[in-house]
Amino acid sequence: MALKPTPDVTDSIPEGGKARRVYLQLKDDIARGVLEDGANLPGEHRLANTYGVSRVTIRRALEALAGDGLIEKRAGSGSIVRSGRATRQTIKADIANLVPHLAEMGAKTEARLLEFGYQPASSAIADALGLAEGVRIQRAVRVRLLDGQPFSYLVTHVPEDVALSYSEADLATRPLYSLLELGGVQIDSAQQSVSATLAAPDIASALDVPTGSALLSLERVVRDEQGRGVEHLAASYRPDRYQLSMSLDRVGDGENRHWEPIVQLETGLNGSGRAAQ
Amino acid sequence: MALKPTPDVTDSIPEGGKARRVYLQLKDDIARGVLEDGANLPGEHRLANTYGVSRVTIRRALEALAGDGLIEKRAGSGSIVRSGRATRQTIKADIANLVPHLAEMGAKTEARLLEFGYQPASSAIADALGLAEGVRIQRAVRVRLLDGQPFSYLVTHVPEDVALSYSEADLATRPLYSLLELGGVQIDSAQQSVSATLAAPDIASALDVPTGSALLSLERVVRDEQGRGVEHLAASYRPDRYQLSMSLDRVGDGENRHWEPIVQLETGLNGSGRAAQ
Repeated sequence: MALKPTPDVTDSIPEGGKARRVYLQLKDDIARGVLEDGANLPGEHRLANTYGVSRVTIRRALEALAGDGLIEKRAGSGSIVRSGRATRQTIKADIANLVPHLAEMGAKTEARLLEFGYQPASSAIADALGLAEGVRIQRAVRVRLLDGQPFSYLVTHVPEDVALSYSEADLATRPLYSLLELGGVQIDSAQQSVSATLAAPDIASALDVPTGSALLSLERVVRDEQGRGVEHLAASYRPDRYQLSMSLDRVGDGENRHWEPIVQLETGLNGSGRAAQ
Repeated sequence: MALKPTPDVTDSIPEGGKARRVYLQLKDDIARGVLEDGANLPGEHRLANTYGVSRVTIRRALEALAGDGLIEKRAGSGSIVRSGRATRQTIKADIANLVPHLAEMGAKTEARLLEFGYQPASSAIADALGLAEGVRIQRAVRVRLLDGQPFSYLVTHVPEDVALSYSEADLATRPLYSLLELGGVQIDSAQQSVSATLAAPDIASALDVPTGSALLSLERVVRDEQGRGVEHLAASYRPDRYQLSMSLDRVGDGENRHWEPIVQLETGLNGSGRAAQ
């Protein structure tokens, strides 16, 4: 199952070319606010020096950015950044519960199940879950959307005997942790690490970004009360739509002074985020 | 001040070209273990289809990967991934204390101060710190290295009156939080968010990665006991050398069941990580 073809406003600059690279980099800088709304973009000559490319290449990248509405070209006086950053909706998720209480934000999320099947575990997945290599596991690929816009790409692996408690239809409509807990799995703990990755063609298409864009990546191994691995999650997030946030307190004295994360208190108003990814 | 020029094993494929993009993507997949050590790489024909490029382009990308020692070409039977992933040293930092107790790992970190100066605050930095736009701030750029290998690129902004307690020489030798606390600042709390970004040319050079590589990015605003912003940190990390890790507990009952981060206990053996970034 595939998502609709990605509408690409950058058809004018070839995939993988130099202009595309400069376009992606500047777009990334605008999305992150390194280039601020209303700021003057450096001139073509300076950009050409910075990126080590010709001015023709810079001009093509700027045309694509203008086509996206991210810059406004001014005759004779360069370009102005028009990020509209303040108005864009970005999910600020806390690092434990990866999908926050979006309903409280007035927003609606949904998940689309792209792939569902059983296969032998690769050595990396088997190692992570503490299984023998080649043991059969349930693999699913889902995309999560906020108000119809994709923001995360989730690949999950669950040992076959654990996965027998849910069907493809179940996973298309309910969060995986809910299904596992309904099936009697005592989910107890998780270990996760956060990193960054380049969007490969298939993930880029599902998340509606150009191939080679930067994505936030997260890997999580979930264990039950016996310490058995019951889920491996590899998630990729669009950084313009999703950020992991947390608050910290500075505690301790003298040489022992250090940061500690502040545990978010649950409001109890809304269960939608609790079992989500 | 600039770091030494980046040795580039990929000089054979032009910066920003299609072969470079495929090279970066495959390198990223190998670093993350999506392509596992010892696995067969898909054939040239399949890779060409996946990336929408010619087989000549794929061949150039594979030659560069072979030059890096990341794949081994076999006559007539494709290529084998040789990531040596298990032996590579990756920093696993907890999400609160961004530099863990590396001395306990037998490793040595150092920071190099690349830039140090005073300038008017941009609107984004002023907003984040709760200052008026244009107020003078101290800006520093540092690179942190583990055993001589760069892994993080740190840009800090500190309000001028707070920054008067340290000099350029101080910052070249001591962590910023130590200096602020020695100077009498009561650091109280922080808010941070984690995302991903593409390596711009200057950051790529300092971190010794190709331009356009994926980097883990972190933004942190630090406040004193009066709630005043005393530091803005924008950090970029090499994902192959640095990951943010955390453990979670599944707590609560029924509809209220959710994840909570496990606060790491300090061992008190080593203060080196406490004030670092």
